[in-house]
Amino acid sequence: MTSLTSAPTAAESTDRVEFRVQPSGYRHWRLTFDGPVATLSMDVDEHAGLVPGYELKLNSYDLGVDIELYDATQRLRFEHPEVRAVVLTSGKEKVFCAGANIRMLACSPHGWKVNFCKFTNETRLAIEDATTNSGQTWLAALNGTASGGGYELALACEHIMLVDDRSSAVSLPELPLLGVLPGTGGLTRLVDKRRVRRDLADYFTTRQEGLGGQRAVDWRLVDEVVPRTRWHEAVARRAAEFAERSPRTARAAAATGAVAGGVALTPLTKERSGDGISYRHVRATVDRTRRCVEITVNGPDDEAPTSMVAVHRQGADFWTLAMTRELDDLILDLRTNEPELGTWILRTEGDGRRVLGHDALLLAYREDWLANEILLYLRRTLKRLEVTSRSLLALIEPGSCFAGSLFELALAADRSFQLLGVFEDVDPPGRPAVVTPADVTPAVITVGGMNLGPLPMGNGLTRLRTRFLDDAAALAAVRAQAGKPLGAEDAHRLGLVTFTPDDIDWAEEIRIAVEERASFSPDALSGLEANYRFAGPETIETKIFGRLSAWQNWIFNRPNASGPDGALGRFGTGQSPEFDRKRV
Amino acid sequence: MTSLTSAPTAAESTDRVEFRVQPSGYRHWRLTFDGPVATLSMDVDEHAGLVPGYELKLNSYDLGVDIELYDATQRLRFEHPEVRAVVLTSGKEKVFCAGANIRMLACSPHGWKVNFCKFTNETRLAIEDATTNSGQTWLAALNGTASGGGYELALACEHIMLVDDRSSAVSLPELPLLGVLPGTGGLTRLVDKRRVRRDLADYFTTRQEGLGGQRAVDWRLVDEVVPRTRWHEAVARRAAEFAERSPRTARAAAATGAVAGGVALTPLTKERSGDGISYRHVRATVDRTRRCVEITVNGPDDEAPTSMVAVHRQGADFWTLAMTRELDDLILDLRTNEPELGTWILRTEGDGRRVLGHDALLLAYREDWLANEILLYLRRTLKRLEVTSRSLLALIEPGSCFAGSLFELALAADRSFQLLGVFEDVDPPGRPAVVTPADVTPAVITVGGMNLGPLPMGNGLTRLRTRFLDDAAALAAVRAQAGKPLGAEDAHRLGLVTFTPDDIDWAEEIRIAVEERASFSPDALSGLEANYRFAGPETIETKIFGRLSAWQNWIFNRPNASGPDGALGRFGTGQSPEFDRKRV
Repeated sequence: MTSLTSAPTAAESTDRVEFRVQPSGYRHWRLTFDGPVATLSMDVDEHAGLVPGYELKLNSYDLGVDIELYDATQRLRFEHPEVRAVVLTSGKEKVFCAGANIRMLACSPHGWKVNFCKFTNETRLAIEDATTNSGQTWLAALNGTASGGGYELALACEHIMLVDDRSSAVSLPELPLLGVLPGTGGLTRLVDKRRVRRDLADYFTTRQEGLGGQRAVDWRLVDEVVPRTRWHEAVARRAAEFAERSPRTARAAAATGAVAGGVALTPLTKERSGDGISYRHVRATVDRTRRCVEITVNGPDDEAPTSMVAVHRQGADFWTLAMTRELDDLILDLRTNEPELGTWILRTEGDGRRVLGHDALLLAYREDWLANEILLYLRRTLKRLEVTSRSLLALIEPGSCFAGSLFELALAADRSFQLLGVFEDVDPPGRPAVVTPADVTPAVITVGGMNLGPLPMGNGLTRLRTRFLDDAAALAAVRAQAGKPLGAEDAHRLGLVTFTPDDIDWAEEIRIAVEERASFSPDALSGLEANYRFAGPETIETKIFGRLSAWQNWIFNRPNASGPDGALGRFGTGQSPEFDRKRV
Repeated sequence: MTSLTSAPTAAESTDRVEFRVQPSGYRHWRLTFDGPVATLSMDVDEHAGLVPGYELKLNSYDLGVDIELYDATQRLRFEHPEVRAVVLTSGKEKVFCAGANIRMLACSPHGWKVNFCKFTNETRLAIEDATTNSGQTWLAALNGTASGGGYELALACEHIMLVDDRSSAVSLPELPLLGVLPGTGGLTRLVDKRRVRRDLADYFTTRQEGLGGQRAVDWRLVDEVVPRTRWHEAVARRAAEFAERSPRTARAAAATGAVAGGVALTPLTKERSGDGISYRHVRATVDRTRRCVEITVNGPDDEAPTSMVAVHRQGADFWTLAMTRELDDLILDLRTNEPELGTWILRTEGDGRRVLGHDALLLAYREDWLANEILLYLRRTLKRLEVTSRSLLALIEPGSCFAGSLFELALAADRSFQLLGVFEDVDPPGRPAVVTPADVTPAVITVGGMNLGPLPMGNGLTRLRTRFLDDAAALAAVRAQAGKPLGAEDAHRLGLVTFTPDDIDWAEEIRIAVEERASFSPDALSGLEANYRFAGPETIETKIFGRLSAWQNWIFNRPNASGPDGALGRFGTGQSPEFDRKRV
């Protein structure tokens, strides 16, 4: 067993991608602070690509660069409650960011490209989440040209400033240059977020060199252009204005009595072995024969603290935060490193009452900045689970603690199974030989406050509301049972679980479900799950994952993009791509 | 030039697919009438596939079967104002419909599969449109198993009855059997239309044999199950009930004074030559070098009739109806038969005032069933244009009539160009030598009532509202100019056209736009346009075309489905597919 407690930089990990980094190890970003304004400067080390085979020129990025960016977004929120505006800029002269590295895209297998885009999309959405819900407003200060993914990064910011020097521009050159679409939400954000008129967006997206100057403002591609002579002053002034307007200070001082210091995101304890990964509260066991991973989330070891002061003192050790960080890391790790393990079996172990106690504390003190951040992080992590292209099965057994925040795992699953009664034989193969009281108490689930509002899905609805779409009566019946442990029969009657086999059928039914899932086409499952998980209304977020990504997946997979004569393959060779001209 | 005035059946046309059919030539459907109830029986001739290479067993269908179904939906609406309920059933014993023919799918190229799904989706949506907006309520009477596309056909109906005989079931076996998704909206309709719970939908869609009996009712997969002994009586009673509730009778009798007889959809006059297709009001000229089609829609030859009585008398010759039918047929024809012509250039010719006159008449008499049907048909046809994977450029030149309903063509386009001023040289190559007054009058566009409500896009918004998403001021400024012919400067200032080159730049700018478009990756263009055309809210319709179709396109194109060892290729061979197990 290898201890990975001291996280390697992403670039050092060649076999398995690691998502755990820290600022002292950043290769590509510089984070500086000036009171309420943080500045995050992109300064990509072109020789530090995650995978050999390309150079990260012109501030182009690969997964390693984005892993550090994600880490920075997290630390800004947890470690810097004083930061109310984040200026995203470039440490290079004349170029902001050239987008995803094209050679990297050209030499990456299909699955890698798709997974890379998914993660970068999640980080862009996290930037918007920080602006909207954490009072950390992100400003893009484009001190040079922002192309492709570089401009998409700017589009995730609340305010876009572009230097006005007759050469700097914003552009989405993917279509004319590479025969693919912008992969991180650019199309959707142009028309749906920034309300760029669709015909202008169409023209802009076919124009390789992009647009700058006043026309970029007139078309709403950027919010302002500023001459280079006034650049630094203008950026500083704008950042100060946004910082001034932020509610974050008030929130930090409120409620709990001035516990305003940041919470250090200490290195995660993570052990990787041949058959799994384990953290403090979360463990995963892989079963390569059945092509599945069994993920167990442990509930809190102790009762919830009685005040937010104690939570601030516990910091990264506070159960909800610690568990969420571990789950987040595990999802990213498995998604990237174990693509053939197509089914994730979700289990919990512990005391549901304690889970609800932790939930209640966070919900009671939502005005506290840290409680708010923990809730938002849990929300983002559950969304990350849901956009993961793996089949999710939840097993609700005696000794489990699917209550409140952890019941969201069962609601996120494609199917859930709750044991009716108890296991008659408490010592079947693979289960502990010691009989505990939990083993002879039937499994329950408990609906709590966390299920009724604070953790909406990407579609803007809670998982319960999505489950009972437009069925107000069903939802009301569930609400009426909030706080009450529900056995299998009640849970089934209320529509909260899919199946409730008893001890006689349990093992066989689960076995069949897992084996059957493993027998299906992995691609068809990805498409099926993407469609079922997000019923109801659509948002920019669901459009990015559900519509734009699907088109991009298709395009990435077509010979016109990825074939030997396609646009990605021929990029930089001096030869034009050979297209199959049939419109499909 | 070949005259195609007498339409061949679809099956007879081997080179180019023809969409013009009539009931006397149906091979696969029987349409019978009993007062307000029509019965459409599917009885597929297994030896009459559109393309050689497969047999249409068990009421499975191909494009030819669906072309007849589409024709039937159109005739029911125009020729049968008395019909208020349509029973969709099968003429075979024990089977309703086995869905799209699998061998056909397995041997079809990627583009054919996608185009086939698109057209069948449009027909399913037209069935829903008939129920919702025409008072022709469709009931699915499943007198046997409905699998895959067969069940999806039922899902498009308002009410689903299933015979309860211990063997008949509904199923979506695409995923377990073929490694693809249901291709005609099944997933979306289950969760978003019928509110089937997502975990139950997940289970159902992985269960090859499907579900029947009471459980199918409990899970909302069907609305009722009926024993075979009471079947005919129950179907007849239910159809009578729906017919009774329909507003169609009232509408037919209203407003115009009892002109309630149907309007015959007489055969379209269509001439096909080497370089194009021409109808009475619409003509298309193909330019294979530039890979584009120039489509010209002529405005009305005459002033609008002064009453709906005259419109009923003109019937299929009434300009709006005649033009819409021609445009509809042209879109289908080019989409299917000319996949390499990637850009459609949209022009109009005629008197915008007359277009507005025809529009005004229809809008004034919307309570008249025929006026209603014509409006709805125009709406469907514009939507068909928009889900077409071709780049659409509108050219607004002197002599054009982009007013009201025809201005929707410019609004549907990806970009529009309006000439500023007139052509100084009215006799450039390719233009008529005769100088008419129209040639020396600058081009105008006119916003009319048709642009302000009755022709929403698939997203539920008008094209103008989608164009000015959430920009109420821009929309109000446009509304204020309704009815007023707008020259290029005004149109540009109001954001109604994309570019307004003058005579000096016109030819060059258009040439560049067309050549550039032809140089791009056709796949990337399809993805780009699909994303930009439907900004704003999503509906079942946009989800089907924008999300489900994109996933299906991707899956269709993956080796796991379509490769030599994929599920489609190996279907029926007795060998299991070999999947690449990586989840993407």
